[in-house]
Amino acid sequence: MSTTANLKLEALPPSGIRVVQYRMKPTSIDLSIGQPSLMPDPRPFEVAAQWVREHGCPYPPYNGIPELRAAVAQVYGGRFHTSPDNVCVTNGSQEAIYLAVKSLLEPGRDEVLIVDPGYPSYGRCCDLEGVAKRTVRAQASHGFHISAAALLDALAPQTRMIIIGSPANPSGSLFSQADVDELARGLSARPGDPIIVVVDEVYRELTFSVDAFPSMADAYPHTVVVQSLSKACALTGLRVGFFIGPIGAVQLATRAHMLMLMSVSLPSQRVALDIFQRPESLRAHHAWYAAQRTVMLESARANRVPIIEPDGAFYTMVPLPERWRHDSTAAAHALLDEHDVVTVPGIVFGSQAEGFLRVTWAADEASVREGFFRLGRFISG
Amino acid sequence: MSTTANLKLEALPPSGIRVVQYRMKPTSIDLSIGQPSLMPDPRPFEVAAQWVREHGCPYPPYNGIPELRAAVAQVYGGRFHTSPDNVCVTNGSQEAIYLAVKSLLEPGRDEVLIVDPGYPSYGRCCDLEGVAKRTVRAQASHGFHISAAALLDALAPQTRMIIIGSPANPSGSLFSQADVDELARGLSARPGDPIIVVVDEVYRELTFSVDAFPSMADAYPHTVVVQSLSKACALTGLRVGFFIGPIGAVQLATRAHMLMLMSVSLPSQRVALDIFQRPESLRAHHAWYAAQRTVMLESARANRVPIIEPDGAFYTMVPLPERWRHDSTAAAHALLDEHDVVTVPGIVFGSQAEGFLRVTWAADEASVREGFFRLGRFISG
Repeated sequence: MSTTANLKLEALPPSGIRVVQYRMKPTSIDLSIGQPSLMPDPRPFEVAAQWVREHGCPYPPYNGIPELRAAVAQVYGGRFHTSPDNVCVTNGSQEAIYLAVKSLLEPGRDEVLIVDPGYPSYGRCCDLEGVAKRTVRAQASHGFHISAAALLDALAPQTRMIIIGSPANPSGSLFSQADVDELARGLSARPGDPIIVVVDEVYRELTFSVDAFPSMADAYPHTVVVQSLSKACALTGLRVGFFIGPIGAVQLATRAHMLMLMSVSLPSQRVALDIFQRPESLRAHHAWYAAQRTVMLESARANRVPIIEPDGAFYTMVPLPERWRHDSTAAAHALLDEHDVVTVPGIVFGSQAEGFLRVTWAADEASVREGFFRLGRFISG
Repeated sequence: MSTTANLKLEALPPSGIRVVQYRMKPTSIDLSIGQPSLMPDPRPFEVAAQWVREHGCPYPPYNGIPELRAAVAQVYGGRFHTSPDNVCVTNGSQEAIYLAVKSLLEPGRDEVLIVDPGYPSYGRCCDLEGVAKRTVRAQASHGFHISAAALLDALAPQTRMIIIGSPANPSGSLFSQADVDELARGLSARPGDPIIVVVDEVYRELTFSVDAFPSMADAYPHTVVVQSLSKACALTGLRVGFFIGPIGAVQLATRAHMLMLMSVSLPSQRVALDIFQRPESLRAHHAWYAAQRTVMLESARANRVPIIEPDGAFYTMVPLPERWRHDSTAAAHALLDEHDVVTVPGIVFGSQAEGFLRVTWAADEASVREGFFRLGRFISG
């Protein structure tokens, strides 16, 4: 049936992340998925159910329940954004990313810098809103680390926002302390309206290469931090995320958020509050992931699978042999067909990741071991 | 601090619904609120917590869990939209309304007809998206009922969508069976691309004037029904709503929904599923509201408060005496200042409701009785 349509939405191609996942069989080893295989702590859900029994389930405030916003600002607000008013509770980090593009940028006037490779949603939100985007390359030869210098070099008069992930999806690369400092210095020295840096830190609690997490929020006041409980606490279905930044930006984002969806699920927010009241529980899964990363590194070495060692998150980038260097999509399909392993083709994340597969190691240990064994055969075959 | 901003968002004035509510005192009688004073059934929350204990909290499908979509299509899909694929689970009805405007219309090309008076969000979503809107008047002298004839008369070549509420906020007026039939006939007879009718039916379970609910979804295939558990089940904080319509429209809406927020809270969806597995529970609060409506009608009569008798929802429109006929905002402030009762000025809902107050009777019985007593003194004073 024909229907009227928004043209930008209609023109948006599929994201591609599931291009091979769609063909998964019941027997397949799934190294494609972006969600933890761990189980979440069930206690906060019982606390939330008990709260509803006592208080009902009324509208939460548009920007989220105040105690939750206060706790989030303390944990993730960095040096500048420590008040509850610096936080809007969002429907996962996805909404926070969308709100940054939707509420802080004007189509036809403003431009966003995004990193190639990067999480496809950043650019897709720009496309849906008609906001111009330009990519800055993070090179495989540098472990897909984006440098502050490359970002600063790419700035143009119309650039109003930079979106980076740290640790980044797909490569797990961290935006280093030196780069944080250099980017903050470089942006602060520029005359005119400040450029907003949106940092997607959803994998922050899963960082392995450093002791102190280097956050733009500690260095630069015009930072918007995107956060979520999805990855750290195995709560991808909770749909609680956070938009954390300057009060003016948070107020604008909240206005769009009200019209888009009013407010975030109160039971979900009560679960989140229970977790933030014991902030150490945000790190509860870290040890499991650290061990899992060791399993992955060992399996890669044992099976001669070359990888780019990730600083964080739960992905690694696997460079393909010459015959697949220009068609990671064909490689991912072949890997499924020949060895029954599901991965994501690098090209989904940008041209710099063509010739790579994104391989997740958040699956259970046996799947990671067997998956890398099969990857080894695929790559040497 | 100055920040970059989206111009349409920045230009959007406050909705006004809370213009008097913001000044509420702890002693105030609140007849302004859009949420039930009843407590929800706590059982579905315990069922959801138990489900999470057993299955964790993974990403739900973008469009919602299939069993929930199947049940919703059966209950609210009408004659044409009875498959799970006819439903996208949304973050409350607010998101469903926004998705209709965002995903089915092209700014600069398409136009929406909305009813004056009506729920302010309909027009505000259009304003945020830059979609042209035109209002059709529902007159106080007809109990604020909008007629099919008025809607059909207002159609222009660029009209692609009509948004109506039934029962409507603020007046509680129902779009009658005769109007449903006439609008369906009139629209079906038009050549060219079909016009989409979006019907906000969030108060459907709170309908008192008819036995069989007259739904556009039974009469016209290009209907999008907006639904929610908020009002029927006292679950405004659950944030579970539904976009129900033709598969093509649902698919487009789901694409925008994915980028905006990925999917709806899984615990909230499990609560909703438990309710839909016992669909009679959707009507569990009906008797309380019917009794409450009788209390309101009696109180209005006893205190000589003129009202427009509502078909459904939990509001009534109170016409103001001559001195307030052109300033319902001043009247609502005066009512708060002089009698400590909070209401919503009619003008918030459109120019046709100027000279009226919207008075909620979802508060507890004592508040409704005392509130109407004070309203009587205010109006005669």
